[in-house]
Amino acid sequence: MIPVRIRDQFPALTGQPDVVYLDSATTTMKPARVIDAVSSYLSRETGSVGRGTHPWSTRVTREVERVREQVARFVGASGPDEIVFTSGATAGLNAVALSWGLPNLRDGDEILFNPVDHSSNVAPWRNLQRILRRLGVQVRLVPYEMTGAGEIDVEDLLGKVTHRTRIVVATHIHHVFGSLSALDDLNPSIVRCLDCSQSVGHVDVDVQQLGVDFAVFSAHKLFGSPGAGVLYCHRRVHDRLDPFLPGGSGRTTAGLPALLEGGTPNIPAVLSLGKAIDFVAEVGIDRIAEHVRLLTRLVVERLRTVPRLEFTPGPAWSRCAAGYGIVSFRLPEISASDVGFALSSENFYVRTGNHCLPEGADFEDSVRVSLHLYNTEAEVERFADFLGRVAKGMV
Amino acid sequence: MIPVRIRDQFPALTGQPDVVYLDSATTTMKPARVIDAVSSYLSRETGSVGRGTHPWSTRVTREVERVREQVARFVGASGPDEIVFTSGATAGLNAVALSWGLPNLRDGDEILFNPVDHSSNVAPWRNLQRILRRLGVQVRLVPYEMTGAGEIDVEDLLGKVTHRTRIVVATHIHHVFGSLSALDDLNPSIVRCLDCSQSVGHVDVDVQQLGVDFAVFSAHKLFGSPGAGVLYCHRRVHDRLDPFLPGGSGRTTAGLPALLEGGTPNIPAVLSLGKAIDFVAEVGIDRIAEHVRLLTRLVVERLRTVPRLEFTPGPAWSRCAAGYGIVSFRLPEISASDVGFALSSENFYVRTGNHCLPEGADFEDSVRVSLHLYNTEAEVERFADFLGRVAKGMV
Repeated sequence: MIPVRIRDQFPALTGQPDVVYLDSATTTMKPARVIDAVSSYLSRETGSVGRGTHPWSTRVTREVERVREQVARFVGASGPDEIVFTSGATAGLNAVALSWGLPNLRDGDEILFNPVDHSSNVAPWRNLQRILRRLGVQVRLVPYEMTGAGEIDVEDLLGKVTHRTRIVVATHIHHVFGSLSALDDLNPSIVRCLDCSQSVGHVDVDVQQLGVDFAVFSAHKLFGSPGAGVLYCHRRVHDRLDPFLPGGSGRTTAGLPALLEGGTPNIPAVLSLGKAIDFVAEVGIDRIAEHVRLLTRLVVERLRTVPRLEFTPGPAWSRCAAGYGIVSFRLPEISASDVGFALSSENFYVRTGNHCLPEGADFEDSVRVSLHLYNTEAEVERFADFLGRVAKGMV
Repeated sequence: MIPVRIRDQFPALTGQPDVVYLDSATTTMKPARVIDAVSSYLSRETGSVGRGTHPWSTRVTREVERVREQVARFVGASGPDEIVFTSGATAGLNAVALSWGLPNLRDGDEILFNPVDHSSNVAPWRNLQRILRRLGVQVRLVPYEMTGAGEIDVEDLLGKVTHRTRIVVATHIHHVFGSLSALDDLNPSIVRCLDCSQSVGHVDVDVQQLGVDFAVFSAHKLFGSPGAGVLYCHRRVHDRLDPFLPGGSGRTTAGLPALLEGGTPNIPAVLSLGKAIDFVAEVGIDRIAEHVRLLTRLVVERLRTVPRLEFTPGPAWSRCAAGYGIVSFRLPEISASDVGFALSSENFYVRTGNHCLPEGADFEDSVRVSLHLYNTEAEVERFADFLGRVAKGMV
């Protein structure tokens, strides 16, 4: 397991020791070095990037490019030209829809997607479909199924591939089900786009091993500051992309990554991302993955003893002992939000509701527990004990 | 003038007293309360907005909505529903192009724009034109002229209005020329979009007085943290807008502002914007405007004595004593970047280059001095003295 001293690096946790934070899939806590990077930028060298000749500006320009190289290594990209800084994962997925989809999709083309995915992985494609439809181009959104364990049903997906399938959009670790999927065995002419928001920092994310064309994640779910994200673009798609939100010093003729980076970037958040990746590297991604796996299994094991608790798809239904930090469930006759209120009254901070599932997704509200390296076995035990009392109507 | 103690609120300035920061049009320094708001969010209550039921989340949700109300009052909007948080001014202008332009422009429609504007006010429209052209819809980008003083040539603009003119895009204070323009006397059926990035915090920006449909600015040029901005949308255009970068908890059916706010917002930067507006209100916008005006006139007056210095359009050519903090110039036979290097060697931080003018704009590199409330007469005097020596080849 992860030693307790690592937890000491998170001021929000040490400052509020009563809180049991079980909502890391919404946003993670920030280690001190991340907060320091942001404060230092704001209080010392508030320059902008690629603009001006004075030392504050040239220094942050250099530092941002250093973070880009660091991110490229972290995700196994071929080089920093494949790393685009965005304002977050949602912006990154919209960039794929607008900068790749808009210029490349033709009447009759098909997009394979998961209708119970995070809405950020669905709404950009519905939006693109509407834009194209209005201009007389019809593209089809073809839904694929998930298994009872919450993974992509690969057989179903492959069965839905046609000669008009242009892209498959999927999620690496599902934000409600906590199950891991991969996009294997696809015809290489089909573009693959993977949302890694919940996997990055939890398991090793290697874009080449994953075989994807696009991958996105946000800094704030990886111990970084909000308002920044990464869009990985494989070089093979670079010549098929249009500018994304152009303007500022970025030149639309400049190729990647500038082509997709308009405006002043969120410099402090990008710098914070560099420190967050340092932190993950120091702890070790394998050690984090194992810690989170053990805690996830412990949650499942303990919640199994709660009377009449119903798990959503996810690790409770997995055939192996996998676990990636997310477990969701319902208690019959108590609404998810009531469970959440009861839990937060005792300082157990979870997420409840529909968890950003897309409009029209037929999925009842649930309670989600999401864990990260700073959580402990003792927290899980206390949480499960208290939840048991909630389920029995003792609270 | 502004008292020196206000300058003491900026750690970057007090910590590096040798630096004369003359690059506020690129990004402003941050007062301590802004930095504290960001640090406090990252180190204490790292919740997300509109997600979850625990206190960290509900508290930041409430605070973000309070900032929205504060921004609405600050710019004279009719209500918080007119205030959209974006990732910055460039994103805001692209939102107008994609969320208003894409669904509303028809074959043959015309966009009136300034070809020597900031590229963020040009590139989104060229991008939209390219998107529509590929889909068989031709829209025209019609350039209007500027006067020798760097203001919009209203006569030229009005002469170019046709029955196909759908929108006029303009800038309130020009980022190189430092001159102020307004969009008066236009047929009310023409949509008006104004970039207020350089005017907000310098002069009173009242969207109703300005009579605009859309206005944008970024937090980081208003003493706030980077990665956040505001898009004002007048209620009369609300029913003509498509979603912008949809995803996350925002519901595309939810109306404004949610319709244009996908993904997790840059919460710390939004909170910082609230503190920045508090700061401006405390100092007083009229006092800031007068301080900046006097300093701008002093720069012009002092630079007039520098041999062979050539001003770009702007306050040096204005018929009145106006000044909004920006003065740009060239020295013959010394490149702008060489002037910038000489200046920065003595800790005068200015901006040099083409200043984000759009591709194809025929405009020679220049040196830009940009001032804000923390600059002093003494700084301007020292700067002008040193520049005189640079011009005489004494440096």
